Amino acid sequence: MKGLFITFEGPDGSGKTTQLKKLANMLQQAGFSVIVTREPGGTSISDQIRKIVLSPDNSAMIGQSEVLLYAASRAQHVHEKIIPALIAGHIVLCDRFVDASVAYQAFGSGMEEAEVRAINQFATSGLKPHRTYMVEVPVEVSQQRLLQRAHSEFHLVLDRIEQKDSDYHNRVREAFLEIAEKEPNRVCLINGDRDKEVIFADIENDFQQSFANFLKK
Amino acid sequence: MKGLFITFEGPDGSGKTTQLKKLANMLQQAGFSVIVTREPGGTSISDQIRKIVLSPDNSAMIGQSEVLLYAASRAQHVHEKIIPALIAGHIVLCDRFVDASVAYQAFGSGMEEAEVRAINQFATSGLKPHRTYMVEVPVEVSQQRLLQRAHSEFHLVLDRIEQKDSDYHNRVREAFLEIAEKEPNRVCLINGDRDKEVIFADIENDFQQSFANFLKK
Repeated sequence: MKGLFITFEGPDGSGKTTQLKKLANMLQQAGFSVIVTREPGGTSISDQIRKIVLSPDNSAMIGQSEVLLYAASRAQHVHEKIIPALIAGHIVLCDRFVDASVAYQAFGSGMEEAEVRAINQFATSGLKPHRTYMVEVPVEVSQQRLLQRAHSEFHLVLDRIEQKDSDYHNRVREAFLEIAEKEPNRVCLINGDRDKEVIFADIENDFQQSFANFLKK
Repeated sequence: MKGLFITFEGPDGSGKTTQLKKLANMLQQAGFSVIVTREPGGTSISDQIRKIVLSPDNSAMIGQSEVLLYAASRAQHVHEKIIPALIAGHIVLCDRFVDASVAYQAFGSGMEEAEVRAINQFATSGLKPHRTYMVEVPVEVSQQRLLQRAHSEFHLVLDRIEQKDSDYHNRVREAFLEIAEKEPNRVCLINGDRDKEVIFADIENDFQQSFANFLKK
């Protein structure tokens, strides 16, 4: 596959989506073909699954269903959209991927990490990102940003995941940090509790270094 | 768990649903508490998943997504509805279960059988039926019945699974027969190409023998 597959991870409110868009703009202006996508979602079938998994009406959802629905959405996204884009040589920037399932469903909701990983291995046929930017902020900061966003968008209902308690969000944060520590060659840990432009300078710098050969083509 | 968990398997058009209803009526008239349910579906969340998986608009669905969606629907059904009913001592009669995923997704659609089984083990936490009635008919018979049903119900659009070709349905039939052969203690194979009452006499007879102790209580 000739393309590049880059994922952005971190809690809601970490600023990862803003940073992903900045990287997309930078690369597009430099003349690269960039595909911006997100999980859960990214294809018609994946978006239908996204609605079920995030609906606040589905509070009866058990942990196993949540793991399997995220994986189903991801399987469709990977095979219908991401792999064909990589074969065609595009740069794919994806907001959340397997790390998010490990953090939220295994560490957050208490499912077995090995089972979550095995199911995602099946879903993705083993596809791994070339690089992952993991944007990290204290739980108080991400929660505060989420509340501000809800107010400013007149959108006062948090989704089913956002509604979970702060213990849950602390476990998720620890999971992200642990993944970054265990896979330093893939994961670039970014301090997200700083000015947007300062954060992006770090990401841009890392990207230029990591993919110097790709960018020269 | 004090209850009984009985599943009915076989292709669409085999007559399994008719037989399930007959057994439910017989047991209810004998004073037992019976819960009739079906897959995919059986709970609100499972029904939302059912709509995605069976919609003819979702023809782009890949095999991995199909396996994971059926498993997600099943996980919710097992944990929210079936296990609590069995704990409460009810007889649960379920139209399709794990055997259907092995037959349709592994043998029909070509997914790895071991992976389909592992994912379903995770989804069901290992719950197995006490008895499975596998209603077996030649593919020509089940296909003919489906077409007749579509006409008589003025419902001329077959769902996404029903639309597959006859090679697919032949592989599914072989899978059901193989499962019955491999697990004779659980699976009771029933010839469905006979009169409804004759078929039901076989099922009733087997049920009375298999669960004599339960029925005496």
